[in-house]
Amino acid sequence: MSKKAAPPKIPPAATAALIAAGRLFHQRGWVPATAGNFSVRLDGKSLAVTTSGRHKGELTETDFMRVDLQGRALDAGKRSSAETLLHCQLYRHSPQAGAVLHTHSPASTVLSRKHDSIRLAGYELLKIFEGIQTHDTVVEVPVFENDQDIARLARGVDAHMRTGRAPHAYLIRGHGLYAWGRTVEEARHRVEALEFLFECELHERLLKATGD
Amino acid sequence: MSKKAAPPKIPPAATAALIAAGRLFHQRGWVPATAGNFSVRLDGKSLAVTTSGRHKGELTETDFMRVDLQGRALDAGKRSSAETLLHCQLYRHSPQAGAVLHTHSPASTVLSRKHDSIRLAGYELLKIFEGIQTHDTVVEVPVFENDQDIARLARGVDAHMRTGRAPHAYLIRGHGLYAWGRTVEEARHRVEALEFLFECELHERLLKATGD
Amino acid sequence: MSKKAAPPKIPPAATAALIAAGRLFHQRGWVPATAGNFSVRLDGKSLAVTTSGRHKGELTETDFMRVDLQGRALDAGKRSSAETLLHCQLYRHSPQAGAVLHTHSPASTVLSRKHDSIRLAGYELLKIFEGIQTHDTVVEVPVFENDQDIARLARGVDAHMRTGRAPHAYLIRGHGLYAWGRTVEEARHRVEALEFLFECELHERLLKATGD
Amino acid sequence: MSKKAAPPKIPPAATAALIAAGRLFHQRGWVPATAGNFSVRLDGKSLAVTTSGRHKGELTETDFMRVDLQGRALDAGKRSSAETLLHCQLYRHSPQAGAVLHTHSPASTVLSRKHDSIRLAGYELLKIFEGIQTHDTVVEVPVFENDQDIARLARGVDAHMRTGRAPHAYLIRGHGLYAWGRTVEEARHRVEALEFLFECELHERLLKATGD
Repeated sequence: MSKKAAPPKIPPAATAALIAAGRLFHQRGWVPATAGNFSVRLDGKSLAVTTSGRHKGELTETDFMRVDLQGRALDAGKRSSAETLLHCQLYRHSPQAGAVLHTHSPASTVLSRKHDSIRLAGYELLKIFEGIQTHDTVVEVPVFENDQDIARLARGVDAHMRTGRAPHAYLIRGHGLYAWGRTVEEARHRVEALEFLFECELHERLLKATGD
Repeated sequence: MSKKAAPPKIPPAATAALIAAGRLFHQRGWVPATAGNFSVRLDGKSLAVTTSGRHKGELTETDFMRVDLQGRALDAGKRSSAETLLHCQLYRHSPQAGAVLHTHSPASTVLSRKHDSIRLAGYELLKIFEGIQTHDTVVEVPVFENDQDIARLARGVDAHMRTGRAPHAYLIRGHGLYAWGRTVEEARHRVEALEFLFECELHERLLKATGD
Repeated sequence: MSKKAAPPKIPPAATAALIAAGRLFHQRGWVPATAGNFSVRLDGKSLAVTTSGRHKGELTETDFMRVDLQGRALDAGKRSSAETLLHCQLYRHSPQAGAVLHTHSPASTVLSRKHDSIRLAGYELLKIFEGIQTHDTVVEVPVFENDQDIARLARGVDAHMRTGRAPHAYLIRGHGLYAWGRTVEEARHRVEALEFLFECELHERLLKATGD
Repeated sequence: MSKKAAPPKIPPAATAALIAAGRLFHQRGWVPATAGNFSVRLDGKSLAVTTSGRHKGELTETDFMRVDLQGRALDAGKRSSAETLLHCQLYRHSPQAGAVLHTHSPASTVLSRKHDSIRLAGYELLKIFEGIQTHDTVVEVPVFENDQDIARLARGVDAHMRTGRAPHAYLIRGHGLYAWGRTVEEARHRVEALEFLFECELHERLLKATGD
């Protein structure tokens, strides 16, 4: 096969799963306005990602495009999300990552502005993550500083992951959550679980004031 | 009738009621990711329960299977929810239990992490429970420690119930709510009422800080 | 016309409006389980009210029945809501009342357990009430003690109203809201406005703790 | 073309976009009862605005009418929203404003009652506004005193804007949010973003109490 082989077509089932995830996330208030971006791996060299500036609760089949793992457009006439390089970093770093979902919720935004990492301990729902079989564990979700230079932000995330720390998800300060999985479904389940846990953590921090 | 008589088929109306309950609970945020599990009694010896790992907001007719009251599969090729034995305990202990619903909400999760039981007093909605005719009463919802050994957890719940204390529902710490009723509808109403009451309790605890 | 003339049939448009209100309220979490009850005036002598024990988010045309202004059934074989007499009191006291809606929200429940009346001042939304043309006003929503003797509770509400105080709505402690209007639509708008205002008030009480 | 040329017809696509925005806002609880009002510019001399007293979650095509930039009706037999002059002010002041959306949320109402302006800093979502390319910025949303004399309120908003301060949106105390954009879609995205940010700010103020 030539190096110049055409990238695979985007499977309609993957597009449909991302469109449905976007509708759900919008109903929950996790992708306000044009916030968020979603992708799915096509093969070892390419992915499909949402195009720039689309509302994630109202995606259609034409709101996706193909890029290579360096974020270069493979479809003419379309511009991919400004944060495409963060998706590419995850697919390059984790061969098993098949889908990446980036969302913005009030809980994750508020927590990310106050903390350098979010410590999740003792929750049954932590079993949603790879390799976790018990609630009796701790998951640390790191918070990276926001940066409009996405290439630099992606390098920072990559450097963090290369030190051996392998977060199950991460936050960008004042910006939102990045979660992933082998499939769109698995990535979506992790977003649901993390947003649930962030909401619990927000309530626990509020309750601390009562001494209750 | 032989002891080996085939278990009853799962009534389509029961499956439909559980599917609808799952959709509602997911809209409310009470069954994030693959959390939760649901069942309905078939007869004195068997029940139908959700299979392992399904999203409870997106159940279909094939996501249920039959097990006996010891949790043994009666349908080949399917694996029941990891928490099937907690459902079995309730059906064995309470002959009038016809349906069991297990949910995960932020309010119940947060409260269960801070308290050993949740005291609900003075609410009109308490009349949803068996034998309660007035708001002027107290209902204690016990909180059991979470345990990945579900057989042991079920024995602990059973021992608690055999001491004469007959809770109307219970929580597992950091994990969620178990509620039941004679029918799926009654069990669902109790989940709705309990989640409402837990939300009220969470707000009351937050207000305590204000001295208001 | 004889005094024994048959009461009017329930207009299908009124039933449809109450069914739609119930669906909306359930989506918002204001009628959990079988909580709440709704009615519409038929004429000077009768009303249609929800039958006992129905889920208000899933009402159908058969879930309504006719009663007279003393709460006596006019349709055989049906039992009206346990709180029918509170509806009757409002129709007897206020000739312009055409519909009464009773809901249970977390915000109204929590506030009603802490206060003897809820003072709403300075909100643009207060203009939803009869005779109010400016935000620069105060509306007091009284809180009555809950009582399982509904006839006695209705007499208490009536006595309060006969002293010249004419509340725009009222709360029952730990129980919920009663609101009314000339039409189902107007009553529903007032429920929406009041629940909004109670939610604001709950947040304001929480903020007081911060000294912000 | 005569000065008396008929104003343009209201484009069905604009009406449809406003109806859809209203449904979304109502689902979120941002237009309770008959609160809120929406408009779209027709040309340099006229706009279409919601008629008075309609529920914004249930708008139909007949719930809009044409007015000129001084708020005078261009369609006989209809009465425009009481706040039409606030819409007119924005279209007169900002030639690029193509749509104006006014909403009432609990978060914006509560914040507007406590502060004279809401300072939004460091959020990725601020990039939704004209000319903002980074999260590392500050947006001040001014709060104007509520006033039942809408002409006077509109003059106050106009005077504020003419001093050179060009807010991206504004609040009216105890009343709600005014946001705008070149299109209905852009205005709606800004409402979604602002409501998200107000919700974050409300949570941050609550967390301050915990010293967390």
